[in-house]
Amino acid sequence: MNAYDELMEFARTTQALAQVAGRLGWDQETMMPRAAAPQRAEEMAAMEAVLHARRTDPQVGAWLEAAETTGPVQVANLRLIRRDFERARKVPARLAAEIARVTSMAQGVWARAREEDDFAAFAPTLKEVVALKREEGAALAEGADVYDAMLQDYEPGATAAGLEEMFARMRPRLVALREAVLDKPAPTALTGTFDEGAQMRLARQVAKTFGYDMARGRVDKAVHPFSSGSGLDVRITTRTNPVDPFNSLYSTIHEVGHGAYEQNIHADHLLTPVGQGVSMGVHESQSRIYENQLGRSEAFAVWLYGQMREAFGDLSVPDAQALYAAINRVGSGYIRTEADEVHYNLHILLRFDLERDLIARRLEVGDLEAAWNERFATDFGVAVDRASNGVLQDVHWSIGLFGYFPTYTLGNVYAGCLYEALRRDVPDLEGALSQGDLSPATDWLRDKVQTHGGLFQPRETIARACGEEPSEEPLLRYLEEKFGGLYGV
Amino acid sequence: MNAYDELMEFARTTQALAQVAGRLGWDQETMMPRAAAPQRAEEMAAMEAVLHARRTDPQVGAWLEAAETTGPVQVANLRLIRRDFERARKVPARLAAEIARVTSMAQGVWARAREEDDFAAFAPTLKEVVALKREEGAALAEGADVYDAMLQDYEPGATAAGLEEMFARMRPRLVALREAVLDKPAPTALTGTFDEGAQMRLARQVAKTFGYDMARGRVDKAVHPFSSGSGLDVRITTRTNPVDPFNSLYSTIHEVGHGAYEQNIHADHLLTPVGQGVSMGVHESQSRIYENQLGRSEAFAVWLYGQMREAFGDLSVPDAQALYAAINRVGSGYIRTEADEVHYNLHILLRFDLERDLIARRLEVGDLEAAWNERFATDFGVAVDRASNGVLQDVHWSIGLFGYFPTYTLGNVYAGCLYEALRRDVPDLEGALSQGDLSPATDWLRDKVQTHGGLFQPRETIARACGEEPSEEPLLRYLEEKFGGLYGV
Repeated sequence: MNAYDELMEFARTTQALAQVAGRLGWDQETMMPRAAAPQRAEEMAAMEAVLHARRTDPQVGAWLEAAETTGPVQVANLRLIRRDFERARKVPARLAAEIARVTSMAQGVWARAREEDDFAAFAPTLKEVVALKREEGAALAEGADVYDAMLQDYEPGATAAGLEEMFARMRPRLVALREAVLDKPAPTALTGTFDEGAQMRLARQVAKTFGYDMARGRVDKAVHPFSSGSGLDVRITTRTNPVDPFNSLYSTIHEVGHGAYEQNIHADHLLTPVGQGVSMGVHESQSRIYENQLGRSEAFAVWLYGQMREAFGDLSVPDAQALYAAINRVGSGYIRTEADEVHYNLHILLRFDLERDLIARRLEVGDLEAAWNERFATDFGVAVDRASNGVLQDVHWSIGLFGYFPTYTLGNVYAGCLYEALRRDVPDLEGALSQGDLSPATDWLRDKVQTHGGLFQPRETIARACGEEPSEEPLLRYLEEKFGGLYGV
Repeated sequence: MNAYDELMEFARTTQALAQVAGRLGWDQETMMPRAAAPQRAEEMAAMEAVLHARRTDPQVGAWLEAAETTGPVQVANLRLIRRDFERARKVPARLAAEIARVTSMAQGVWARAREEDDFAAFAPTLKEVVALKREEGAALAEGADVYDAMLQDYEPGATAAGLEEMFARMRPRLVALREAVLDKPAPTALTGTFDEGAQMRLARQVAKTFGYDMARGRVDKAVHPFSSGSGLDVRITTRTNPVDPFNSLYSTIHEVGHGAYEQNIHADHLLTPVGQGVSMGVHESQSRIYENQLGRSEAFAVWLYGQMREAFGDLSVPDAQALYAAINRVGSGYIRTEADEVHYNLHILLRFDLERDLIARRLEVGDLEAAWNERFATDFGVAVDRASNGVLQDVHWSIGLFGYFPTYTLGNVYAGCLYEALRRDVPDLEGALSQGDLSPATDWLRDKVQTHGGLFQPRETIARACGEEPSEEPLLRYLEEKFGGLYGV
């Protein structure tokens, strides 16, 4: 065997082990007996130690030096292996271990602080996390921009400067749109109680409608919906709320977007570095276009109205048009994960600015809550009433995820671009959606984006699918048209 | 850290990884999407490679040489680690890999041959397996008895000669008992159909009644019932049959015996070598005493009758005494896993003699089917009608399990001894059982057997619990009394 083949065999085994570790995570949220947690922590730590040793194995460096490549797939695999290897090599083992220790403890501290609406109880721990992440970022950056280095973990190729410029163009238009919409009366909401068994049956049916392959996946309940795994075993979770069937429905469609992406990567790439979604932003573009541009569209509401009446009996809204309006009600809430499409990106822009300031030492943890509340009042026109509705609402910072938040908005931006290209390429998209036929849309996404996995860089993946460089314009146009139409602004 | 502590830290991580591999096995039989099998095979192979590398790591040998011990727990841990290390060292890597390859292929060949009742289609593959296992056995035996060496994988300390003598004493009494019982009319069977949801509810309730801790376990359905895992995460499976509620009930109780054993090992031993059931024979003693001596007892039938009426409505048998008789109906079937207590050990004795002859080259695979059928006719008084009811019924030999079968009867023998000691130590055992209070029995088993895990050798574990050396006498007395009483012989 030559160096490339040897390296790929090694990488394939590493990827198989990573899939096992991921499945442990799925099990923990769905099946694990409740008293098993302490043992599970040791099992996960053992898996992580095995994976870390493989990722930093000096033999990988030797193979990388010796490997010769003959085509784009090989080039991409080497690029991805090299990135992981160099990242692991740059962070001292002591620091990596300390980050693992502190963040695993910090998540518990955050959860208790959130429960008690007490940011001060979390601040000392967050301070430790921020200090460690600054140190790690500096090690990764090697003199260049620290936040940029952090971004590469989630969105290779993205830069803080590029995101900042784009977000600066988005913010005034989003603020203007929310103000215009909130001046108008809100459409009627869907009310009633909805059988949770029927919700799960509808969720599974809708998952299949969106192309999720049940032979290579399964749908279970979990407190926080997620998608897990790559290749032939990609599992998703959802949740039910007896008075809100949209929660289950759109959680499911969102996770199906993530799951279908992983399922639709070309079979040749199974268990190779290229055989996974290329970045968080591109992943989120799939979950968002499934959930929003397709799942919350006027055309899809036509089909959905019939399905919901079949599942739940008579609804409190009279027709598909009213269901479409109810699905897309805009309201200024505190919580990112419950935000409508108009507000969602404003939540992200706030977090992006604050976390960049934290990492750049322009902001310290002691001033974080005040900074959050001030910005929230400016952008949302409402004062934060308590910490759990403000700075304590998200788990991300407690577990050391800095540089992750912007990928949510990047995903929305990519979804906007893809949707415009999809409508251009697929003539009667609305006709198909209104009959519950998602295949023209999901086939297009599979062939243009998903099948490639990590073959191209993230931004290149989107640019190739759209035939042009991605920008925020299509998303903003889509939002202004959709909500302008719905609210008559 | 001293050598012992370093070795134990290493062993603990290995044990945690082994738990992960075991949980993958559970997932495969209960939750895995059906099309995920090829990926799962790679994941399992990756885990096995990691575990094999750790078990044969030369550092383990160095630690074993340097480690000093100060008490019985440390002595036992070193003994168990040394056994695994030396076993792994004795078998050449090439041979281990070849056995893994051939047996994984052979299982499929066996399954197809069984389906088509065609032993000749399986024979060439079984020949390969037997040849490889003979070679492995010779490597393990280093000049001593090959079958004895194989036994050590499942029942450390057992010898073929010892088992042969014991089985020779059992066989005539078992044959005589089955002949006497089959001369009498059989009691009325339980008939009807039994809601499978109600069967699962009853299974979970009975599992708890027998002391299975649901906070550290769970009960799911699987094609073949099994128990999986140690410590804080021990899962069992069962199955349901709409016309046979005993199938679900006694599969559950049997697996609860295995699962409770693992759950009840002292918490200090978590994820250490001592922290697992000590042998297959002792494991089976727990599953058998739960299932048979306790679960199929006259006293327990009193409580069970009420539970089953509550679960299923009116039964076809009029009272607890009739239920007890129905549970313990004796019939001469072909299949080991469906055998009653009188016939079960005759099935094992047959397999023990044949597999010993195979390994010792006194019998070749080409003559195996004829040898099986001849012996079956002698001991069971019935001619085997087809291979799937005879030599092809069990998976064991196809996957290379030689030396495993006798542990089933050894488990029954141990259960007989334990039951005699239990009745001596617990005055009103029957009174408690008739009220569905299993705790006097399960507490005794926990404190006398289960809590020790691998602290003592298997036979010593039983001897300490019983206060005397184990023998077949108590089991035979129990069977003769129970079935003599039931059938009036």
